[in-house]
Amino acid sequence: MKYPLGKEPNKTKEKIINYSNRGMDLESDINITNEYYRSIDKAFIYKKPTPIQVVKVDYSKNKKITEAYFKESSTTDYNGIYKGKYIDFEAKVTNTLSFPLRNIKNHQIEHLIKVKEHDGISFIIVRFEKTSENYLLETSKLEEVLKEKLKTIKLEYFKENGYLIPIKYKERTDYLEIIDNLYGDIL
Amino acid sequence: MKYPLGKEPNKTKEKIINYSNRGMDLESDINITNEYYRSIDKAFIYKKPTPIQVVKVDYSKNKKITEAYFKESSTTDYNGIYKGKYIDFEAKVTNTLSFPLRNIKNHQIEHLIKVKEHDGISFIIVRFEKTSENYLLETSKLEEVLKEKLKTIKLEYFKENGYLIPIKYKERTDYLEIIDNLYGDIL
Repeated sequence: MKYPLGKEPNKTKEKIINYSNRGMDLESDINITNEYYRSIDKAFIYKKPTPIQVVKVDYSKNKKITEAYFKESSTTDYNGIYKGKYIDFEAKVTNTLSFPLRNIKNHQIEHLIKVKEHDGISFIIVRFEKTSENYLLETSKLEEVLKEKLKTIKLEYFKENGYLIPIKYKERTDYLEIIDNLYGDIL
Repeated sequence: MKYPLGKEPNKTKEKIINYSNRGMDLESDINITNEYYRSIDKAFIYKKPTPIQVVKVDYSKNKKITEAYFKESSTTDYNGIYKGKYIDFEAKVTNTLSFPLRNIKNHQIEHLIKVKEHDGISFIIVRFEKTSENYLLETSKLEEVLKEKLKTIKLEYFKENGYLIPIKYKERTDYLEIIDNLYGDIL
């Protein structure tokens, strides 16, 4: 069969990004929580935009970007201010009962350690999809695992060394409650 | 004249983004300064990536983004940690002897004020191209201008109420020297 433009239609592997139905994911929960913190003037913590290398822009079409590539983040995804303190964290999801450390880039771990050393508050949040639980693990506890040269962190380690983040109606993952309990005396 | 593919070559308004020869601009100077601060373990301050709404990705071509649009930033361009304190600022260039306030978005000014109120350190850096000077102006001084409902801030105001940022070989715009002088007692 011949097509009018000389090629088969719709054979491209281009995909339209679907932004709907993301209400249940961790990123969305954290963003909603951060919006709530801002709305009650509690903390100003944002997700950093995904870094993208722009190659071509069509200025005739409303500054449409026509060629670009995802880049690797230089730091973690979330940072901001809470009671004068610098807050910095990375959030990840695992669908097994352990968290593979390869999910966090080395330079991200180094960044979390730097923040801790410079008197900021840094941690990771890991969602275990199987148990529908979110845990906060401080960078110091993450470093202990790294010293053991383990490749994964088991859920038990999070239960023993991390903190289960309460799920609330408005603060869908209220990690600042954990931070208050941990650092209340210096905040 | 006829072209092989039936259309004139190179008539598109697509532009290839040129990343070279940017060494002289303010963003580049601040990035180099921040890299230097990191290299000497002094501060961890980064430029946030430009927010881009990705619409189409071609997964057959190395995850090439084929349709995307620039979005408005929700916050300021730079933030990070210095001696445990949260640092947040916006950097702008003006080619006249005054700085038009419309160059900073309202929500960015609101963000700077929020950071200040929450005990962080926030400010703007403005480069006056005509005099080749960079000034740091604290958010409190920016608020005073806003109360006057002025539309521009004159260079004289920066000279009197802001701080000329020293240019050094490695710290090409050493704004933390100003921060040390201003907040040395709490850092």
